[in-house]
Amino acid sequence: MQKIKKDALGNLVYGKIKLMILNGALKPGQKINKKELTEQLSVSQTPVNEAIIRLTGEGLIEQQERKGFFIKIFTYQDLKEFFAIRAGMEGVALRLCVEEQPDNTLDKLTHFFDNFSLPLDENEYKKYLKADQEFHQKIIELSRNSIIINFNKNFDFIMKSYQKGLIRPPEETLPEHKAIVKAVRNRDSEKAQQLLIEHHLKSRKVIKDQHLKYNTNN
Amino acid sequence: MQKIKKDALGNLVYGKIKLMILNGALKPGQKINKKELTEQLSVSQTPVNEAIIRLTGEGLIEQQERKGFFIKIFTYQDLKEFFAIRAGMEGVALRLCVEEQPDNTLDKLTHFFDNFSLPLDENEYKKYLKADQEFHQKIIELSRNSIIINFNKNFDFIMKSYQKGLIRPPEETLPEHKAIVKAVRNRDSEKAQQLLIEHHLKSRKVIKDQHLKYNTNN
Repeated sequence: MQKIKKDALGNLVYGKIKLMILNGALKPGQKINKKELTEQLSVSQTPVNEAIIRLTGEGLIEQQERKGFFIKIFTYQDLKEFFAIRAGMEGVALRLCVEEQPDNTLDKLTHFFDNFSLPLDENEYKKYLKADQEFHQKIIELSRNSIIINFNKNFDFIMKSYQKGLIRPPEETLPEHKAIVKAVRNRDSEKAQQLLIEHHLKSRKVIKDQHLKYNTNN
Repeated sequence: MQKIKKDALGNLVYGKIKLMILNGALKPGQKINKKELTEQLSVSQTPVNEAIIRLTGEGLIEQQERKGFFIKIFTYQDLKEFFAIRAGMEGVALRLCVEEQPDNTLDKLTHFFDNFSLPLDENEYKKYLKADQEFHQKIIELSRNSIIINFNKNFDFIMKSYQKGLIRPPEETLPEHKAIVKAVRNRDSEKAQQLLIEHHLKSRKVIKDQHLKYNTNN
């Protein structure tokens, strides 16, 4: 029985610390104070140590030799890398959906942008922001690919920590979204993939250009 | 000084246990015997515990509630998922290489298959196997995308655990490799990406078909 409790406690503490990173209670760059965490969570040192090491393995915490453990700071370079990967992963996920899923599954992807047309007023803009997030989330979900799904969970948190609104304006992205949906409806899997890849790589380019500008100004 | 030694020892033990998984000294499905590992590596319990938890975070070990820690077994389903992701990640990596890297960097990709023509004899087959691995490795490396590079480290290990030779015969893959290289030489980034995605999705299909056959026969 002792062993059951220990495993369960370990997972609980891991879950709590992860949540503190995801919801911003522990901030990027912050040094982890193990003693404080131990007191805050009212547990012993061991499960806290184990959770920190597990989160280091997942890439949310990093160990700096001789200095201790820190909440990972994601840079522009990281964000660029994420958008490249997002393009590739989501592109393939969408393609395989279109090739392998039945109509009633694909239908879950095709309604997100039906009621939007440009220009969007403030209220519609908010709705569009939500539809955009849900559309991309749905592609990930329909992929049923557990690695893509897990990757997206971490990625999503990084996106949120950087982004208040949209990276590109609806004037650019709404027509792109509609074109992607059209290719899905037509069961043109390669076209759908290609358009989705372009869509994310255009956002990557915006981030890359911002990065270059930032580096030049500083 | 005590702290430095502790960090260094922790990393050393982690590295050693990871290597034991990668080189098969610890086999998929095997239960981890912490006491045995501790004795084998002549260290105390703490760095062994920490290494196991870190490798759980990385996905190479899994914890089974109440039972302990086991080396992760990768299934056909996992392998299918990996090939989808590989197609997406490597496709984008290659495309961005072709768009953003100078000629002397791209030249590192274009020589791998120059000296092969079909049919291959046994000796050439072995060389081809090596060239194949090195070609894909080089694409990952040239991406300079740390997430893709890290992912590939784990993925490569999975490939090794499934594969004694090639998933598809050189009769299929050599022309595909040559076509990819040609697109790279022509700086046709979208073509190169598209061909590389097809290349991996064809291997995914072989795995998918084997999986279906296996499930039908059993």
